[in-house]
Amino acid sequence: MPRPHHPRIRLGMIGGGQGAFIGQVHRLAARLDDTCELVCGAFSRSTDNNQITGEQCHLNDERIYADWQQLLESEQQLPAEERMQLLVIATPNHLHVPIAEAAMQAGFHVFCEKPAGVSLREAQRLAESWQASGCLYGLAHTYLGYPMVWQAREMVSEGQIGRIRKIHVEYPQGWLVERLEQQGNKQAAWRTDPTLAGISGCMADIGTHAFGLAEFISGHRISELCASLASHADGRQLDDDGEVLLRTDQGASGTLIASQICSGEENALKIRIYGDKGALEWHQMAPNSLLYRPLQAPMRTLRAGIDQPDLFPSAMQRLRLPGGHPEGYLEALGNLYRDFSQAIHQGKQGDVDGVPGMASGLRGMAFIEAVTTSAQSEQKWMPLPATQMSGV
Amino acid sequence: MPRPHHPRIRLGMIGGGQGAFIGQVHRLAARLDDTCELVCGAFSRSTDNNQITGEQCHLNDERIYADWQQLLESEQQLPAEERMQLLVIATPNHLHVPIAEAAMQAGFHVFCEKPAGVSLREAQRLAESWQASGCLYGLAHTYLGYPMVWQAREMVSEGQIGRIRKIHVEYPQGWLVERLEQQGNKQAAWRTDPTLAGISGCMADIGTHAFGLAEFISGHRISELCASLASHADGRQLDDDGEVLLRTDQGASGTLIASQICSGEENALKIRIYGDKGALEWHQMAPNSLLYRPLQAPMRTLRAGIDQPDLFPSAMQRLRLPGGHPEGYLEALGNLYRDFSQAIHQGKQGDVDGVPGMASGLRGMAFIEAVTTSAQSEQKWMPLPATQMSGV
Amino acid sequence: MPRPHHPRIRLGMIGGGQGAFIGQVHRLAARLDDTCELVCGAFSRSTDNNQITGEQCHLNDERIYADWQQLLESEQQLPAEERMQLLVIATPNHLHVPIAEAAMQAGFHVFCEKPAGVSLREAQRLAESWQASGCLYGLAHTYLGYPMVWQAREMVSEGQIGRIRKIHVEYPQGWLVERLEQQGNKQAAWRTDPTLAGISGCMADIGTHAFGLAEFISGHRISELCASLASHADGRQLDDDGEVLLRTDQGASGTLIASQICSGEENALKIRIYGDKGALEWHQMAPNSLLYRPLQAPMRTLRAGIDQPDLFPSAMQRLRLPGGHPEGYLEALGNLYRDFSQAIHQGKQGDVDGVPGMASGLRGMAFIEAVTTSAQSEQKWMPLPATQMSGV
Amino acid sequence: MPRPHHPRIRLGMIGGGQGAFIGQVHRLAARLDDTCELVCGAFSRSTDNNQITGEQCHLNDERIYADWQQLLESEQQLPAEERMQLLVIATPNHLHVPIAEAAMQAGFHVFCEKPAGVSLREAQRLAESWQASGCLYGLAHTYLGYPMVWQAREMVSEGQIGRIRKIHVEYPQGWLVERLEQQGNKQAAWRTDPTLAGISGCMADIGTHAFGLAEFISGHRISELCASLASHADGRQLDDDGEVLLRTDQGASGTLIASQICSGEENALKIRIYGDKGALEWHQMAPNSLLYRPLQAPMRTLRAGIDQPDLFPSAMQRLRLPGGHPEGYLEALGNLYRDFSQAIHQGKQGDVDGVPGMASGLRGMAFIEAVTTSAQSEQKWMPLPATQMSGV
Repeated sequence: MPRPHHPRIRLGMIGGGQGAFIGQVHRLAARLDDTCELVCGAFSRSTDNNQITGEQCHLNDERIYADWQQLLESEQQLPAEERMQLLVIATPNHLHVPIAEAAMQAGFHVFCEKPAGVSLREAQRLAESWQASGCLYGLAHTYLGYPMVWQAREMVSEGQIGRIRKIHVEYPQGWLVERLEQQGNKQAAWRTDPTLAGISGCMADIGTHAFGLAEFISGHRISELCASLASHADGRQLDDDGEVLLRTDQGASGTLIASQICSGEENALKIRIYGDKGALEWHQMAPNSLLYRPLQAPMRTLRAGIDQPDLFPSAMQRLRLPGGHPEGYLEALGNLYRDFSQAIHQGKQGDVDGVPGMASGLRGMAFIEAVTTSAQSEQKWMPLPATQMSGV
Repeated sequence: MPRPHHPRIRLGMIGGGQGAFIGQVHRLAARLDDTCELVCGAFSRSTDNNQITGEQCHLNDERIYADWQQLLESEQQLPAEERMQLLVIATPNHLHVPIAEAAMQAGFHVFCEKPAGVSLREAQRLAESWQASGCLYGLAHTYLGYPMVWQAREMVSEGQIGRIRKIHVEYPQGWLVERLEQQGNKQAAWRTDPTLAGISGCMADIGTHAFGLAEFISGHRISELCASLASHADGRQLDDDGEVLLRTDQGASGTLIASQICSGEENALKIRIYGDKGALEWHQMAPNSLLYRPLQAPMRTLRAGIDQPDLFPSAMQRLRLPGGHPEGYLEALGNLYRDFSQAIHQGKQGDVDGVPGMASGLRGMAFIEAVTTSAQSEQKWMPLPATQMSGV
Repeated sequence: MPRPHHPRIRLGMIGGGQGAFIGQVHRLAARLDDTCELVCGAFSRSTDNNQITGEQCHLNDERIYADWQQLLESEQQLPAEERMQLLVIATPNHLHVPIAEAAMQAGFHVFCEKPAGVSLREAQRLAESWQASGCLYGLAHTYLGYPMVWQAREMVSEGQIGRIRKIHVEYPQGWLVERLEQQGNKQAAWRTDPTLAGISGCMADIGTHAFGLAEFISGHRISELCASLASHADGRQLDDDGEVLLRTDQGASGTLIASQICSGEENALKIRIYGDKGALEWHQMAPNSLLYRPLQAPMRTLRAGIDQPDLFPSAMQRLRLPGGHPEGYLEALGNLYRDFSQAIHQGKQGDVDGVPGMASGLRGMAFIEAVTTSAQSEQKWMPLPATQMSGV
Repeated sequence: MPRPHHPRIRLGMIGGGQGAFIGQVHRLAARLDDTCELVCGAFSRSTDNNQITGEQCHLNDERIYADWQQLLESEQQLPAEERMQLLVIATPNHLHVPIAEAAMQAGFHVFCEKPAGVSLREAQRLAESWQASGCLYGLAHTYLGYPMVWQAREMVSEGQIGRIRKIHVEYPQGWLVERLEQQGNKQAAWRTDPTLAGISGCMADIGTHAFGLAEFISGHRISELCASLASHADGRQLDDDGEVLLRTDQGASGTLIASQICSGEENALKIRIYGDKGALEWHQMAPNSLLYRPLQAPMRTLRAGIDQPDLFPSAMQRLRLPGGHPEGYLEALGNLYRDFSQAIHQGKQGDVDGVPGMASGLRGMAFIEAVTTSAQSEQKWMPLPATQMSGV
């Protein structure tokens, strides 16, 4: 796949110091296809951590910044050809909107960890800033970078499984069975703290991934839901587990399960979609297979690989290797970086083709609010209104 | 496993003529361990079908009866040593209670297909007759005959997964994606007809299996639920699909999915139970494995087989073969017949050790009613009251 | 599948007393479809064991015989309508031929455990007796009773995978990792004793199954081989493990692995056949799936079940249940009994349609001899001459 | 895992122009951990391809060289702090030794695709040059970069499966079922051409991977073998398929299968090792699981992930992500680059810790020669002499 030769996009990063899982993941993924290079960052409130992280990223000292405000200010003053082009936000949730908003106001494109913010209202404010800014905005819904997720979406859209009747999506993890947040685990600490994570723990952290995946593949919009949330570890303030009944705008129904207290589960995001002509099933932990069950015919296992049969171009172009050479999580996130880089080169505004954007962010926030409201309500069905933006 | 030598238990059967799936299944399973022999039957309203079925079962002509009333009447008049001992009821649901009641009043033990009847009230009436009769009563919850289901139940009861937090059970099938009931399929016809099946289709047919399995393994009683049912095929009168949020009397929560319109699914009953010290997972379609995820240790795959490690006696005694020689559905049902035969030899009354009985029947009916009521209600949580009988 | 009504075939059994695995297996399988009933037996040299086994089989005392000679003699004198029709031989290998020969000379059909005998010469003698006798003879190659094995054979024969290039078959077990034969395990004791088992342990016991399966599905005849055998447990006299390079009469090549010292393996018979248009793969431990890889198209998982798509009649008629209701090992052996019963009713002579017979027996013995000869030879390729009989 | 801050290692590459699979793979993997940067290359004999590839790699024009001789010559003349440090050789086999030899003589470290060369003699010459040079030499046995392969090696070495009795390794592919080499497929063209690939096709290309994996995990050295090779596509000059019986220096035996004509197989490298106390099984296509079967206990599935239990440090340090975030082929190769970079920073000479080196190269070449000799011989067992160097 010959691509035009472009210089690398210059990245900055907020958050993601030593010991923060997701920042390192972004750096690994961003490098993969050689379309980006990290040029600056403010990685940690800890001066040491910040400095060490920056050095390990081969940054010049003057571009290892003390905080995000300083980063934005200083980078703005650099010549255009040196200046950061895309800011990656890898902080706890409560900073997503403030940083993204400031960055876009300063003219920087933004690629932000999900969820978009800590409330729908906050995200809506962000959306307005974004539209005013002319900048690109993307959300790191990594799972939407997987080739076989695109394959599934295309197969649905081409009618290969007919009219969708059922959507069952689940995302069980087990890492919060015990109260890690009291044992010095930073990941656990902020995710279970309402002042940093927002109104939801598990549903905001991983329920949104399941939700986004379901809408992305099916093309349906979830229009009503009925949720039950729980916090199983004594004293934990936010939900660590929950299940939701779903109804969509096109008449399908189903379930969404998200949990962080399912002992022994790793990261078992899985989706099944049943139509009246067939069904699809995909597991994130075995991401290179897509199970396709055509009605009245044996199940077919579609396989990822640049030499594999029956793949749509949108799946194919997100692959790097022939069948049987497993690609994984980093490659999926790498696909989002590749698409984002391309959009910058093309001078696009607003949405990034192939990368979930503000519309996804608003949907995710609306979902979190509907789920938490529903969980506290005696009313069975809670509407999940359409958000006004469209897009991936 | 040397067992005392007993004569075979004499079985009669109502229903289960040529073309009726479940009757043939019962005959296969009942023969397996050589503890039973079929001596009489009234298999079909069709005289031809009834006669042919009886002949293929090697019955004497005089014990191929025209209908169930005649069967009961005639068998009662036979000498005790010839007379049928156990009546197997393999009819559509609406006849379960009338036949079972008459049979027990005539002094015959009863082994009935699930559900117990078409309404909780009807099942409660049956329970009273049963208690008055002194007869044994069992329900063909075949899945509770699987060795690894017993293994799971014992592991839970021994505390190997700690306190249960989550129960997710599902039973997707795909055979009713299209309206087979209009294409001459008898199985589909009566299951989708309210006058024969009762107030529920899918939930009564297979949801009850999922429900019974969840309560059996966990030892919890589901105390509240919130259901969504649907009928996806145009014009079908009963539910062919649904999902339920669950809460148990011991503080666990979870989901139950049952569907007959999941394209490409065969009979994919599956249960996952998560405790605070580990988790268990079992799939009916791969019934000889039980996945055990102890907290902070690699997953273990326990395997069925009379030579396999770490099995409890209650699992072991339901196995016939060494590991790697697959046992399946017929063997599971065969276990119920073996246990039933033993209880008759032992002269027991009331419940059959190892076989789901009246308590299960009442629970199942209460579940069906709660689910169908919930599905039509705007109230979120519907209580599922404890039924008064205890037992398997 | 309506079948003509026939009386049950009357079976006798030699061997298979309490504690002998395979005898009990035969009794379970023979009962399954209600086409046979056990009427007599000589189950054990131990008088107690013999008597108890007979009683548990509900035999009349006078038909529990002290030894096989007495059984043959006495049964011959019974009226034709009471007399045993089919003798099941479930003894250690060294008695297979003597008993089978005497039985057929006395006019009884024979269904014998594999291998046919302890040497090719002995099996050839048996073949002559058989041809002279007019009796039916079958070998309990249980794995050839599996529906999906027939499906595979038909797909090959219909050209669905093109010209076969590779055959890889393997049969790893782990139960003889340690010297169970010195710990009172009867199964292990006779299988590792040359006076009872013959010239080979593992290859005779399970290598023959792998060999038979390979020839059965492929339709090829293995014409040359190169073997390496080993006995890994100190002091064990017969092979407990080995591997073989194969070449066939139609130009394919491949490997055969058989072992009883593969720690943790249960009964993992597996075959893969690769043609120039596709490939097939089947695992005995998950027998209801057949993996089909058409060239340049996604893999298809064909599934067993009387309602499943794309099955040939020969597979379909060996099934009893719809998809997703697992059938297993006993059902596979049951299929051989069903076919044998039918052949007796039809008054056939010689071979039994659907059941491996004398030709298979001779092939198996020739294989055992060629493998053991090859293992001791410095010559690379050892011919495996065609045996003269044809058949399954 | 805080690591000292080092500048990136400067890489050059020979081969790997547009359309050449393996060069692109190396560039992706080398970037992943940010320890290397590509500074120069001679990617293709085609001037256009060479130029485009170099530009897409963001190279300066003056460091896109016309051929490997020019690259070596020019780079030598650059100041030490700019000069290439490590040369990656991604050409067809016949150039491996000439380029590697020249590069090391010019003082450059070498990371070369396998096999080491086209003959054992040639590889031995290379070994001498290498020892004289003081340079580092590594071979891209990517599969030895997988974390769970290291885990398996450590478990074996710690005695967790006892004394090894059996090694079964296989590497089936299906991409050469048809004669792609005549349809313009470059990958197929050189691999099937003896002047470019050497004396073997399939065994040199992938058999060596299987061989290296078996020796790496087991710690045994294969000492004798008996091979059968074939070329199934008409007119193909080199082997495209084969199977080998193995014996090791420590008394184990087993099989090695490698094939490129197994229809529908992708890249299904798989190894099973059986000891007298347990067994291990690993599949390259599901690389994040390691199956461990301890004797007399349920199978355990060890899982890759920086938070997963029971992993040895050597596995852990080759992982980047928590359990359930699949890492794959590129990450495995990335591990070799990370280790190579570290060795350069440490100023090591000779072997690179964690990367297969000259000893592996010689073993691989000796294996190729022994296999091809054996395949043409009537002698059963062909010795595979110990090569004189030790190392990974």
